[in-house]
Amino acid sequence: MRAHNLALVLQMVANSPDRPSRAALAAATGLTRATVSALVDDLIAGGLLAELDPPPRTRAGRPAAGLALAPDGAAGLGLEINVDYLAACVVDLAGTPRHQLTTHADQRPLPPATALAQLGRLASAARAAAEADGLTLAGAALAVPGLVAPDGLVRVAPNLGWQDVDAPALLSAVPALADLPITVDNEANLAALGELRADGGSPSFLYVSGEIGIGAGVVLDGELYRGVHGWSGEIGHVTVYPDGRPCRCGGNGCLEQYAGQEAMAADPAGAATALGIALSAAINLLDVDAVVLGGRYAAAFGWLREGIEAELKRRVLTADLAPVTLRAATLGEDAATRGAADAVIRAVRDDPAGWLARRPDEPPHPAAEK
Amino acid sequence: MRAHNLALVLQMVANSPDRPSRAALAAATGLTRATVSALVDDLIAGGLLAELDPPPRTRAGRPAAGLALAPDGAAGLGLEINVDYLAACVVDLAGTPRHQLTTHADQRPLPPATALAQLGRLASAARAAAEADGLTLAGAALAVPGLVAPDGLVRVAPNLGWQDVDAPALLSAVPALADLPITVDNEANLAALGELRADGGSPSFLYVSGEIGIGAGVVLDGELYRGVHGWSGEIGHVTVYPDGRPCRCGGNGCLEQYAGQEAMAADPAGAATALGIALSAAINLLDVDAVVLGGRYAAAFGWLREGIEAELKRRVLTADLAPVTLRAATLGEDAATRGAADAVIRAVRDDPAGWLARRPDEPPHPAAEK
Repeated sequence: MRAHNLALVLQMVANSPDRPSRAALAAATGLTRATVSALVDDLIAGGLLAELDPPPRTRAGRPAAGLALAPDGAAGLGLEINVDYLAACVVDLAGTPRHQLTTHADQRPLPPATALAQLGRLASAARAAAEADGLTLAGAALAVPGLVAPDGLVRVAPNLGWQDVDAPALLSAVPALADLPITVDNEANLAALGELRADGGSPSFLYVSGEIGIGAGVVLDGELYRGVHGWSGEIGHVTVYPDGRPCRCGGNGCLEQYAGQEAMAADPAGAATALGIALSAAINLLDVDAVVLGGRYAAAFGWLREGIEAELKRRVLTADLAPVTLRAATLGEDAATRGAADAVIRAVRDDPAGWLARRPDEPPHPAAEK
Repeated sequence: MRAHNLALVLQMVANSPDRPSRAALAAATGLTRATVSALVDDLIAGGLLAELDPPPRTRAGRPAAGLALAPDGAAGLGLEINVDYLAACVVDLAGTPRHQLTTHADQRPLPPATALAQLGRLASAARAAAEADGLTLAGAALAVPGLVAPDGLVRVAPNLGWQDVDAPALLSAVPALADLPITVDNEANLAALGELRADGGSPSFLYVSGEIGIGAGVVLDGELYRGVHGWSGEIGHVTVYPDGRPCRCGGNGCLEQYAGQEAMAADPAGAATALGIALSAAINLLDVDAVVLGGRYAAAFGWLREGIEAELKRRVLTADLAPVTLRAATLGEDAATRGAADAVIRAVRDDPAGWLARRPDEPPHPAAEK
């Protein structure tokens, strides 16, 4: 019951457009003022809520102190390994990105343990920066361009050359991460979630991430559609030309061979047509009303758009009834790490009692003690 | 509260493997014996539950009378209009099909009102047969091979040549249907639901219906995935050969041009390959672990299978990790009408209070009065 009420109060503050007072929370929840105050005190001590001074008086009446998500308490660490870069990102409980670190380097020649050790160094730097701000990391989430099992095992990441890599165990070997819960997810799934939070627009869309490989995340009514194994959205291996170029997956004519980063550089018009054909298949099957192009596609959006839209108009059965909105991702290359860090934050916001029970005994910042 | 408890008791009987007694229902729900008895009496009077004599004694102890869904009370009427046939089906509350009527005739030359009037005659005959059994129809659901708006308006049914047809209004003009609530849905969606109930197997699959046109229903975790507008699963218009045969939808190389009923008769091997290419796209995007082939594909399964599986093996990224099960629909051509009738029955089972309030005052069968 206490766990439920802690989550209730925290969510109510998180979703409130202004800063509610303790009295307003008591009225909205139906809990007694004393119960709400005890819950709020626990959430403040745990670095999840902050009580802020009243804003300057602009109208009559005595303003009460207001509650907000603590900007200097719990935070999430988002990590990404991709074919030609590593990235780390810290997002605070209020959803504000605080630190973003990116290193460009080809990961393909490296054994997984080496690549993850290098990512671990970036993660250590991000953690140090977060702690210098007084933030306490609640966990880390890793985005990988591949198929991930529910326990975090990376089954296959074709463009990294990975197979059955225990990424959580390898990252936990980094001293700075050893005490953090670590989860792993597909990068397009996490990027789609990042875009969902950042955009505030349509709650239903297909997010397509164009890097060396191509992945997609399906969001319907504000929820990620994962599929049976969590492997939905593999649009990079949708066949565009059945007898076309061989793909490293063993198929022929996969989208990735025509609209991956390298093919796109060689033939942008061909990339747009191929993307339009594969996106049409996805829209005919999934009935989403928006497509968000992320990763390298975000920067290339201006010269991809016309070619893609011509194919959608021709090949989507419902194009005349309900046109599909095509737009560039607002987060660009940061979407996956933002989504990963957000996933950590969401877990804390959904279960504050769990966080209060396992958080470090001595928060690094005295503000959290007040 | 009464509405909630009526539904609770009815669902508990529906989901019970044996026939529970009133006492067992009281114990399981936490309601008093008197409350349960009053609810059960109402459900029996409304033709939703039946109290059956104890089964012959097979062990020690005195068996109590058991409750079951009434096989002679409320029933659902499923209707289908397709390009070359009309069908009607009656399913009783326990999910048992009671009557199935099918008429083969090309519907394309007929104006929608004429085609629906003919379907109305089939529906009248099905209703007469149901009432001769003592059943009371709770409503009708119509399956249409096209895009249907939430209010039942058929926006487009390309292979029937329909556009913006108010199917519920036209069916309500049939005297035998005038007093029934009528809903309309896509035929592949309803067929997928019919297959889900009938099969009892995997709760996640893609159901593909092969007629003159081709549609699909996506079922994940026992729920139909409808998409934003209810237009998901339009696999017939997934591009297989980008510069291929022109389709009546305005595209080129749509699956329907290579694996629709007419193309399949002319070139079965080509149909299998085309189906395999489009199914691979669907599996890469949706991550379902089973594909169920219905409509004409069910009968043709033996000679389609090998060609389809060869493409899945080659083109589904996760084929080696988690092979997809391919099987023929168990219901064949009856799947859509069965699913439609089931949808009516489910609505009654989910809201028995609504049914009790609006059911006809004098049930046609004296058994419902006892």
